[in-house]
Amino acid sequence: MVVQLDNFFRPKSVAIVGASRNPAKVGHVIMKNMIDSGFKGKIFPVNIEAKEILGYRVYKSISAINEDIDLVIISIPAEFVLKVIGECAKKKIKDVLIVTAGFSEVGNHKLEEQLRNVLDKNKMRCIGVNCLGVFDAYHRFDTLFLPRYRLERPKAGGISFICQSGAIGSAILDIAAHKGHTFSKFISYGNATQLDESDFMEYLLQDTSTKVICLYVEGIKNGDKFFDTLKKTTAHKPVIVLKGGLTDEGMKATISHTGSLAGNKDVFFGILNQTNAIRAESLEEMFHIAELFEKKIKFENNRIQIITNGGGYGIVSTDAISASKNLKLADLSYMTVSEIKKIAPKHMNVGNPLDLLGDATTERYRDALNLTLADRNVDGILLITLYQTPLLTTEIVEVITEAHHSSKKPIIVVSTGGEFTELLSKSLMERGIPVFNFPNETINALDKVVAYEMRHKHINWNIGEKILKVKNVRPVKAKRVRPKKRK
Amino acid sequence: MVVQLDNFFRPKSVAIVGASRNPAKVGHVIMKNMIDSGFKGKIFPVNIEAKEILGYRVYKSISAINEDIDLVIISIPAEFVLKVIGECAKKKIKDVLIVTAGFSEVGNHKLEEQLRNVLDKNKMRCIGVNCLGVFDAYHRFDTLFLPRYRLERPKAGGISFICQSGAIGSAILDIAAHKGHTFSKFISYGNATQLDESDFMEYLLQDTSTKVICLYVEGIKNGDKFFDTLKKTTAHKPVIVLKGGLTDEGMKATISHTGSLAGNKDVFFGILNQTNAIRAESLEEMFHIAELFEKKIKFENNRIQIITNGGGYGIVSTDAISASKNLKLADLSYMTVSEIKKIAPKHMNVGNPLDLLGDATTERYRDALNLTLADRNVDGILLITLYQTPLLTTEIVEVITEAHHSSKKPIIVVSTGGEFTELLSKSLMERGIPVFNFPNETINALDKVVAYEMRHKHINWNIGEKILKVKNVRPVKAKRVRPKKRK
Repeated sequence: MVVQLDNFFRPKSVAIVGASRNPAKVGHVIMKNMIDSGFKGKIFPVNIEAKEILGYRVYKSISAINEDIDLVIISIPAEFVLKVIGECAKKKIKDVLIVTAGFSEVGNHKLEEQLRNVLDKNKMRCIGVNCLGVFDAYHRFDTLFLPRYRLERPKAGGISFICQSGAIGSAILDIAAHKGHTFSKFISYGNATQLDESDFMEYLLQDTSTKVICLYVEGIKNGDKFFDTLKKTTAHKPVIVLKGGLTDEGMKATISHTGSLAGNKDVFFGILNQTNAIRAESLEEMFHIAELFEKKIKFENNRIQIITNGGGYGIVSTDAISASKNLKLADLSYMTVSEIKKIAPKHMNVGNPLDLLGDATTERYRDALNLTLADRNVDGILLITLYQTPLLTTEIVEVITEAHHSSKKPIIVVSTGGEFTELLSKSLMERGIPVFNFPNETINALDKVVAYEMRHKHINWNIGEKILKVKNVRPVKAKRVRPKKRK
Repeated sequence: MVVQLDNFFRPKSVAIVGASRNPAKVGHVIMKNMIDSGFKGKIFPVNIEAKEILGYRVYKSISAINEDIDLVIISIPAEFVLKVIGECAKKKIKDVLIVTAGFSEVGNHKLEEQLRNVLDKNKMRCIGVNCLGVFDAYHRFDTLFLPRYRLERPKAGGISFICQSGAIGSAILDIAAHKGHTFSKFISYGNATQLDESDFMEYLLQDTSTKVICLYVEGIKNGDKFFDTLKKTTAHKPVIVLKGGLTDEGMKATISHTGSLAGNKDVFFGILNQTNAIRAESLEEMFHIAELFEKKIKFENNRIQIITNGGGYGIVSTDAISASKNLKLADLSYMTVSEIKKIAPKHMNVGNPLDLLGDATTERYRDALNLTLADRNVDGILLITLYQTPLLTTEIVEVITEAHHSSKKPIIVVSTGGEFTELLSKSLMERGIPVFNFPNETINALDKVVAYEMRHKHINWNIGEKILKVKNVRPVKAKRVRPKKRK
């Protein structure tokens, strides 16, 4: 059964228990950010002492509010939480988000257990405890208690991020917003007292604006549920997973962070493998992969053509594609080669990489793009545009955009540089084209995207002399997964 | 014998053969950039037709200039280069920089051979052909023919970059300048007609402002010379090497790029291994490692303490350090633990990672830094500062700077975020503290720095249960290196 979580992302009315006049208090910041973000619903601050906060009438308790409440956000000391939940239950409120820390992550297991029981008994849904809460880029609703000048909020797009660590979530949202990446929903869920990563995944599977799901997780509480949900989800949307607590030392740290038992990493990797989830090795990798899916990169096959105006970049990229597991260098057809030769300067070598040379003009890029995209031997373009050379005019943005719209084959841009480069890169990203800084990070992410697609479609693509054997994804229960040795 | 190359980086007088009034011509851009950068020496434009370029008197030929010339920059078609070299020889000019392409990289081996013979016969020194030339951040001298609004020039510092690919060099200079990294010298040397990577390395070994050498190389022409120079250099300065043309497909591409034969990669890796050069796997990695050396990071031993205000970041970092080859998690002494407990909030877990929690204040960071730096079990700090939380004031910059000055132990900062974060990060970098965006890229670079130091000092450091066996670096000739299988 899908957990219905709309109230957490687009509530019509919100009560904030622990709202405060003191700007240093979490309850104040949550309320202020909500008002500043232009939230159009009703806000009911709850505080036993204050009469007015930020111009809003204050209520002494949840019971004192005589109106419907979609969502209750709780930010008061741990020992008072149960009482508030009791009041919510009486008012038949179903959705609560508990920011408060001080439960099992500090050894207070009993209190968290009690809380879980009360929530379950009253059929309430709860995000938290010990979390930052949610952010919805489409409805501009968020419960993040971090000031906007310190944490930029990203624009609406297709990445959703389920994150057990609030700090990872907020830092990533901030850098992603700054670099022009776009998000749908963000969920920081801390101790997963009740709702867990599987519930959120299931919800995001139904969420049409979510194109790709990122998951940072420390411990899985219910392995079977996780396996089943992951399998169901990856059949429709890619899920990229980064696991914290892979080593003995890391595992020890997860216990005091989110009270999570990190579990056996080989079993975990086994689950990812059998469900076609994508394993990220680092935060930076996770977001490189997500960016490709967000920009709806789809490959019919795995043959990549490199186009460049920097010879060295072409060579480094050639090495990386050749050494990759799942990508192959495209082999331009005789026709395409002779067409390119007609328009190329005589000292230009036509092949893969296709080095348009340091004096490449925008026009030369246009011709190269059109001719290679039309080639049936090419499935996608790694387009290296180094904007340091003066003959590459800013019109290149239009040229790439046109090519992007005229062909179904993906174009992935790599550009390294300073302010001028960033300007053009942002402009391309706004037009839906993925842009990266360096060849290796790009090709590594592409490799994982193609691996997902191959397994997703149950295709055996020909990789040079290697034929990848893709195993069928069988419906195996998580607990039956045998530990495998990492290679 | 060391090749004396000062004339290339701080000439008192420069002739530009191929200077032009046409702003689209390379010779024009070189001259314009030289004037714009405030070059204080004499400039002699040479052009057969023009009388005046950018306000300078034009000479019909090198022979027509009746003054001393330290450096001749040549940017005319390939077929005319030999004639100009002949004139230079007559005037006893020793140093020429040939930008011109159209030699062995397009199959014109004979012309390049002739050129090399003339240069050698006249004991001339030549950078090029088919290159961008040089940049000296201290003397603000450069021959790069790329406009300043497109290619930012970095400030003076300790990284020098020998780069066979002009495009890689210029793109990296641009992004490095933008991010606040600092450089000493940059050399784009193209086909290495005469002077090669070994000559430049030897020169940079003597250059006191160069603290670390980066090398992007496609083909080594003289293996013995390369081996000997590398060995000599790494005994004093770290050399980080990225090789283009590691795969069969990449090798093919190097031939038409710089006319280089890429050679056997296993022999190449064998040379790096035996000379204690650091192998970079990508451009991004190369500059992460270089940044650490540039900031003069020195480890007495390999035990790293993690301090963080984001639990998830602490866990990811713990995993990465535990999984690294050469780093170890520091084990805080009983004394330090009890001192920290005195000042820490009661729910804070004191260990490694040391999670100062989301409500960490600047003061809590100061205490944690001072106490852990004083611990004899700690050799360096991985300091994660996520600036999204409001209690971490901008004074943190002063706190980190003070700690940096008060202790010899390195502090490496990791901060992920948008504009606010970048502001604080740049400020720290200007004060000599290395700052990175993500934990994994940082720890990976640290790992390679520590590996270099260990081998450099012939130390066996204790890595948990593994004892790394460091082989003596023996004076083996490159040609005797046997191909090894990559692991």
